[in-house]
Amino acid sequence: MRRTKVAAILKDTEYGKEVNIKGWVRTRRGNKFVNFIALNDGSSIHNLQIVADVSKFDESLIKRITTGSAISVVGTLSESAGGGQKVEVQANTIEILGDCNADEYPLQPKKHSLEFLREIAHLRFRTNTFGAITRVRHAMIFAVHKFFSEKGFYNIHTPIITASDAEGAGEMFRVTTMDVNNIPKTEEGKVDYSQDFFGKSTNLTVSGQLEGELAALAMSEIYTFGPTFRAENSNTARHLAEFWMIEPEMAFYDLNDNMDLAEEFTKYLLNYALENCSEDLEFLSNRQKEEEKNKKDEDRSMELIEKLKFVVDNDYVRLTYSEAIDILMNSKPHKKGKFQYPITGFGSDLQAEHERYLVEKHFKKPVILTDYPMSIKAFYMKQSEDGKTVRAMDVLFPQIGEIIGGSQREEDYNKLLERMRALDLPEEEMYWYLDTRRFGSVPHSGFGLGFERLMLFVTGMGNIRDVIPFPRTPKNAEF
Amino acid sequence: MRRTKVAAILKDTEYGKEVNIKGWVRTRRGNKFVNFIALNDGSSIHNLQIVADVSKFDESLIKRITTGSAISVVGTLSESAGGGQKVEVQANTIEILGDCNADEYPLQPKKHSLEFLREIAHLRFRTNTFGAITRVRHAMIFAVHKFFSEKGFYNIHTPIITASDAEGAGEMFRVTTMDVNNIPKTEEGKVDYSQDFFGKSTNLTVSGQLEGELAALAMSEIYTFGPTFRAENSNTARHLAEFWMIEPEMAFYDLNDNMDLAEEFTKYLLNYALENCSEDLEFLSNRQKEEEKNKKDEDRSMELIEKLKFVVDNDYVRLTYSEAIDILMNSKPHKKGKFQYPITGFGSDLQAEHERYLVEKHFKKPVILTDYPMSIKAFYMKQSEDGKTVRAMDVLFPQIGEIIGGSQREEDYNKLLERMRALDLPEEEMYWYLDTRRFGSVPHSGFGLGFERLMLFVTGMGNIRDVIPFPRTPKNAEF
Repeated sequence: MRRTKVAAILKDTEYGKEVNIKGWVRTRRGNKFVNFIALNDGSSIHNLQIVADVSKFDESLIKRITTGSAISVVGTLSESAGGGQKVEVQANTIEILGDCNADEYPLQPKKHSLEFLREIAHLRFRTNTFGAITRVRHAMIFAVHKFFSEKGFYNIHTPIITASDAEGAGEMFRVTTMDVNNIPKTEEGKVDYSQDFFGKSTNLTVSGQLEGELAALAMSEIYTFGPTFRAENSNTARHLAEFWMIEPEMAFYDLNDNMDLAEEFTKYLLNYALENCSEDLEFLSNRQKEEEKNKKDEDRSMELIEKLKFVVDNDYVRLTYSEAIDILMNSKPHKKGKFQYPITGFGSDLQAEHERYLVEKHFKKPVILTDYPMSIKAFYMKQSEDGKTVRAMDVLFPQIGEIIGGSQREEDYNKLLERMRALDLPEEEMYWYLDTRRFGSVPHSGFGLGFERLMLFVTGMGNIRDVIPFPRTPKNAEF
Repeated sequence: MRRTKVAAILKDTEYGKEVNIKGWVRTRRGNKFVNFIALNDGSSIHNLQIVADVSKFDESLIKRITTGSAISVVGTLSESAGGGQKVEVQANTIEILGDCNADEYPLQPKKHSLEFLREIAHLRFRTNTFGAITRVRHAMIFAVHKFFSEKGFYNIHTPIITASDAEGAGEMFRVTTMDVNNIPKTEEGKVDYSQDFFGKSTNLTVSGQLEGELAALAMSEIYTFGPTFRAENSNTARHLAEFWMIEPEMAFYDLNDNMDLAEEFTKYLLNYALENCSEDLEFLSNRQKEEEKNKKDEDRSMELIEKLKFVVDNDYVRLTYSEAIDILMNSKPHKKGKFQYPITGFGSDLQAEHERYLVEKHFKKPVILTDYPMSIKAFYMKQSEDGKTVRAMDVLFPQIGEIIGGSQREEDYNKLLERMRALDLPEEEMYWYLDTRRFGSVPHSGFGLGFERLMLFVTGMGNIRDVIPFPRTPKNAEF
């Protein structure tokens, strides 16, 4: 008899038929006549209730049905008499697939702290919260591929190991096969990278963008979706050493096309979550409320589903960085000295507090800022005619601030080269990037979305370590 | 006016309407009255023919329309008079987006060797062959996600940086932030990994399987799709240092369920390619024929589309390793001493030549071999009652031999522990893997598919460096 998943059974109304369900026991309760087993197999936030007539089973078997044990049940699908669920299964046979010693099992049927669950990340998939996050994460992954596929974008696997340090996006991880007990040296006493695996110094990628551009300037529209790395020693709720990025790059797109795509894309993802993950979102919304119940009203987050709809239902406001600076300079928190990082005028780097002010207080809509000062943005961004700004864009969301950063890319060979020289970037090593501006260069644009940032937004979780299965952070590479 | 993609225009029959196309010039030919420009934007293996009445354009503009240049054309969609294409566009305006100096551009309108194109991997997307491979690769990526999504599997991002060396799957790349000029040492003179980023020695993952199992033993059915790494110094057409793997893991699956899934999955992927990439496959088939035209008949590959249908249309033969050994011992090539690696009996490791003999000569069908000797398989495979085999399976395809390797996993805590001890694996470090067998263990199975292996099979390319955009091999981490 083939197993049916819990999610399917919960929607089934063909009462009286025999079904087989397999899963892990969340709880067993009851009395000496009847037992109720809450069974979960990862397919739904909801458990299936198994009703066991105690007289039909060995006492020793019933005792082994403990929290965390795995069982296979054959039984009759029935309309549930109790509240809280529509269907239940009257057990005819129960088989123990795997025991679970209650004294040793770290997951008890009670609330565990997220910190504790992080330490047992190999088991936390078995909790309601992490089951929900795993399902939502999958839905978002699939939605990313679906969105771009339907638009004719091609997914490009850009390299993880690279020899280039072009982005200067922060500290990088070295990748090496050299014996660290005995690093090979040249006659001059320097590290002899010619003896390393790739014959040169190599690192883990910080972004697939530059390679993505190479593909876009032949295939028109591409996207990357892969792991990226930062060796920053930041132990915060917002930083991971290893995280996943989505980076679309599009030939023939100017900054407006880029903004249109970013808005359409983010709305598509959130809509997809609302339509396909409603039960999990509802659970996560309640989890967040519960977590924040002791906070003051003004410190509470926007309700999760309301927050997603806030983005989906509003047109994103588009304005320039300079306009935003004016708004911020005239704002109450600025005048009252309430910003932790004071705005001093053009050139100020915006922090989450400023971004959130614009979104949550001033416009009450998602915001796209454009035309940032050249000095605070990357070398590859298209220079404007004013000589001081670049065609950059940041998409700002409530609660988290920047969720997307992008730009039109500089397609002019001479301007790009000049900028690289000004920043002392290794132009010989990056001949391949420059080549795309020498041979059939076209206007093009792209952006990056940090996938775990999106996951924080969609799930309402507060710590980025909780939205990726096995987080990598300073001093932590467990599992 | 919005740009239309070449792929869409080629299917359009609304003659007379005005369209805008942007792309890269493949060739321009013609006479002093009329020029024909073959334009490609990556959306199709076929170029769009642009017809330019020379008298309507500046001579200087026409001269700049060279191979590799990028142009934007506004013109009238017309039924093509010439052969080879249904539609063409009569140019009204032509704008040069990016020039391309013909003397410096490495890609000329002639056949380049694959070796040469590997050296200019940043530009090879602009060739017919690599355009086709990129589109097919995308289609296969999407098909993987679609297949598993529709079955209720969850995609799990397993970690890239790991501290475990459990698989023993070969040489690994070290990941470190230690200063290689000045490796920190302990008082005893050993490398002081406590000062490394993660506080211990870390590597790039060789497989996501073990972490995938953790997720499967809560979510039921999961799959990974991510980069994996081998620091093997193998400079062959079959090895990459960085490659992508797909690894499904399923709770409640025995070896038969595992085989069913592997067969359904591979057939789904090939069917998807046949249905969605027919023009690219036709091109790649012709490319392969052309490349092999000087070979002897018996050395030629099976025709590409025929080969894909050979897999899709046949039931995979399932037999045990021991049965396969008997067949091989009784085979002509064995008796005539034609195998490069002679089969000596139970315990012999099968090579591609043996696998191909079984598939191509003996059964003339794809083959799944099961129940391999324990001694030649990994520690986590389920031990059979005979005490000498494990519930492993390898799926064998024509031409490439093994395309999938998998097994039922050992769910018995004591047997698994015993095996790990016998192989001297670090049981303390792998407590998390063992925990899943202590707490609610269930029968489960999984397999791995090397994505570039699949790509070799689907595209008919001969060198694995040509089916990934930017290959990483010994002494090569360019781009």
